[in-house]
Parts: sequence; structure tokens; C-alpha cells
Amino acid sequence: MATSSYLRSIGVLGGMGPLATLDFMHKVLDATPAATDQQHVPLIVHSVPQIPDRSTAIQQQTDTPFLPMLAGIRQLERCGVDAIVIPCNTAHFWYDRLARSTQTPILHIVDAVADELARQGNTGGRYALMATRGTLATGVYDRMPTGFAGSFEVPDESVQPLVDDTIRLVKAGQEAEARKIGSQALRYLIDEQGYDGVVLACTELPVALRQTAHDAYCLDATLALARQAVRFSLHGGAQPQPNIICQAA
Amino acid sequence: MATSSYLRSIGVLGGMGPLATLDFMHKVLDATPAATDQQHVPLIVHSVPQIPDRSTAIQQQTDTPFLPMLAGIRQLERCGVDAIVIPCNTAHFWYDRLARSTQTPILHIVDAVADELARQGNTGGRYALMATRGTLATGVYDRMPTGFAGSFEVPDESVQPLVDDTIRLVKAGQEAEARKIGSQALRYLIDEQGYDGVVLACTELPVALRQTAHDAYCLDATLALARQAVRFSLHGGAQPQPNIICQAA
Repeated sequence: MATSSYLRSIGVLGGMGPLATLDFMHKVLDATPAATDQQHVPLIVHSVPQIPDRSTAIQQQTDTPFLPMLAGIRQLERCGVDAIVIPCNTAHFWYDRLARSTQTPILHIVDAVADELARQGNTGGRYALMATRGTLATGVYDRMPTGFAGSFEVPDESVQPLVDDTIRLVKAGQEAEARKIGSQALRYLIDEQGYDGVVLACTELPVALRQTAHDAYCLDATLALARQAVRFSLHGGAQPQPNIICQAA
Repeated sequence: MATSSYLRSIGVLGGMGPLATLDFMHKVLDATPAATDQQHVPLIVHSVPQIPDRSTAIQQQTDTPFLPMLAGIRQLERCGVDAIVIPCNTAHFWYDRLARSTQTPILHIVDAVADELARQGNTGGRYALMATRGTLATGVYDRMPTGFAGSFEVPDESVQPLVDDTIRLVKAGQEAEARKIGSQALRYLIDEQGYDGVVLACTELPVALRQTAHDAYCLDATLALARQAVRFSLHGGAQPQPNIICQAA
């Protein structure tokens, strides 16, 4: 990967939750072809976890997370970042409004996932979403990324209890058990339901499912976003479509 | 630990290096008595690793890291953080000038170490510094924190090769070997040299020395700073002495 000496800075609208932000930052670090500290991506991270719970807000049809998120975007703008990322699938429910509110490009996590698939030679296919019920309810993955002819699908209801259990077990630190249940869900989606792959759209799932038999079928959405951020920093590539500008910074 | 509902925000002047910043952020997360995401400390993290290498600059008697660090402080100020921390021992070589340049309090890592010792009932004693030669050369630990009557000492030259090897082995991912060599250095300092404890003033050393026989004698400077930051966020306590204001934000 050729690198220019100028690295664009990435603003991270984080804190949703704080551990997911750290997970994203680690993935950026790992995805960067750097031999010295100075070759790493400049990050400004707004990790302010006081943003109200996104799933609850969507469920209760309230808009409480929007203004705190916009305040975060404003701070990142003031720091002069070249692009913004939001390492939280659920928060992308507010993506369109946030993107319209700023001149700074916001890289969309679903575009990053589609781009990652395209880089693997997959511009089509059916991909099952493994995520919390809250994320699935957002419809965030209904987005149709440019150049991607495949589909992201909510799998049938029978598999969701397994996904819920896997996430719960990782949060409880029971990784071996999480791996067992998660692998069961994966086998069902790939072998029985015939999906071409699975998008892990939740921070906990990659912890449970890395290095399992179906690993090659899994795509970690956070990792895809991290790689997209690194490419943007190094090459300025993968520019999102221009935002409609409602309000200048 | 009683918490108020208002949490003060902490600005992190990071990127020195980026992995040390993540280490600090993990320690803040672990040190916070939080049951929900929303109870975690709001952090604005300036992780811009393009700041020139601090040890090299000190060795070559150049001042190149100062202005990039000051630029980071300015950005954190603009974000309105309530206090700033610098999770890099060596960078504290520039502490006084940075602190005089801003109205925002900067928590000093050596004050945090002394405060941590005091909280353990140690307001005196002789503590050996385990750190890179670069950090030792800064004289950062010559600071005399208020209320601390002990001393931080550079141990005799015979132990430094063991410290250098321990750091190098951790960086190379050889933790078991690092633990062996690091423990040897610790035994020498505690059992033969009679130090009351050892300050691990380097990100790599706690990785090698946690859960070893002499663990109780070790104080992780990054962890002390993280705990100080959490206390400041929760209680506004441990205010550093007022800075002399050279230039308003």
C-alpha cells in the first residue's frame, strides 16, 4: 500500500459505548502499515458516553441522542478533522441528518462493509446480519451502497435468540460458551439458509467468532470501518458522496 | 466512591505513542465505577502521533515536539475539556511550558504517582524508577509533589540493561521472556538495593510485571494517571496547582 507523507486526520464520534471506541481504535492501529509511531493515523476521538442509549431511543421513538451526537460532530469539525467515522452501527440511524449538518464527510459503516466485500471480489450476494435487535430495528443496512448489487438481510427470527445469547455471553466474559452458541448460529445461516456470508454488526460478535470454522464467511463491520478510515487517511480515497449542506460549520 | 451526576471531561494529549494512548484509555475505563456507558468519563482524545520522537529530541537537544504538543493542547482547549492529561512519561519534560501556556489544568503524571502512593499509606520512602533511558534523562521524576516526602531515584547503571531488555521483549511480543528478565530486575531493586517500591514509568513494563512475585512493590504510572483522571472527572478533586497564565485560550 503506497502511502503519501501527508496523513488526513480522522474524527471519531465515539463513546457509544466507550469499549467499542477502543475496539475501533485498536483496529485502526492494526490496519495501518506503519513502522514508526509517526506513520499512524492522526485521530481526534470524541468519546463522550453521555449520549443517551440509541437502541432505547429508537424503540421509544424519541430523538434524544441526536443533539448530543451533533455536538460531538461540531467539536470534531472545530478540530479540523478531514473525515468523521461513527464506530456504532445503531447510531447510523441518525447518519443522514448528521451528514447533512456538516461539510466534513462522514464515512458510513455500511459503505465500508460493502467496500470491504468488493475488495474481496464480492459485489453481489446475500449477507445475513448478526446484530442486536436494536441495530436490526434501525434499518441501517437497508442502505444500497454504490457499486454493490448484493443485499444485507435480517435473518429469520429463529436465529436471533442465539445471537442475543452470544452477545450476552461475551459481555459476561464467557468467551468459550459464546463461541459455541455463536458458531451454531453461523452454521445455521451459512449451511442451512445458504447465505454467502455474515456481517457481524456488533462489537461483541467478532470476539466470539474469530478463528472459528466459519471465520472466512464473517465480515466485522467495525474492522471494515477501521480499514476504510485508514485508506481515507492514507489516500483520501473512498470519499463519501457529497453531503447536502444544511448548516455550515 | 460517591459520584456526582456531572462528570468533568478529560482531554488526552495522546499519540505518544498511539498504543500507549489506548493503554491509558483502557485503564480509565477499568478505573471508573460505572454500571452503564453513560457513567463513564467523557474523554476527548488527541491521538496525533506525528509529534516528533520525544527521547530523540531530548537527546539531540532540539525542541521539535513542543509546538505540535501545544497545538494539541489548543485543540483540547477549544473542545472545552476540564483538565488535560499526557499519558507519556517522557513528554512531561515539556510539562512546565505547556502548563504555563494554558488555563486548563494539566494533571502531572508524577503527582498522580505520588498521590497513588499516599493513598496506599506511603507518603515517604525510596522508589526506583524503571523506565527507558530517554525517560530517565528527562529528570521528570525530580519533581517534588506536594505532600510527598519520599524520593524517586534512578537506580544504579547495572540494572538498566535488564530494563531495556524487558521493554524490548514486550514490544516484540515475547511476554514470558520479558517477565523473567523484568522479575530479575525487580528482585535486585527490592531485595538487594532495598528500595521500598518501583515505579513502572513505561507502558511496556506493566505488561511484563503484572502478577509476578513482586507485583505489590510495583506502581504503574499510567494507571496512577488514569485513576487521577477518573477522580478529577468524578469529584473535581486533586486539582493541580494553578498555572501561571502566559497565553489565554
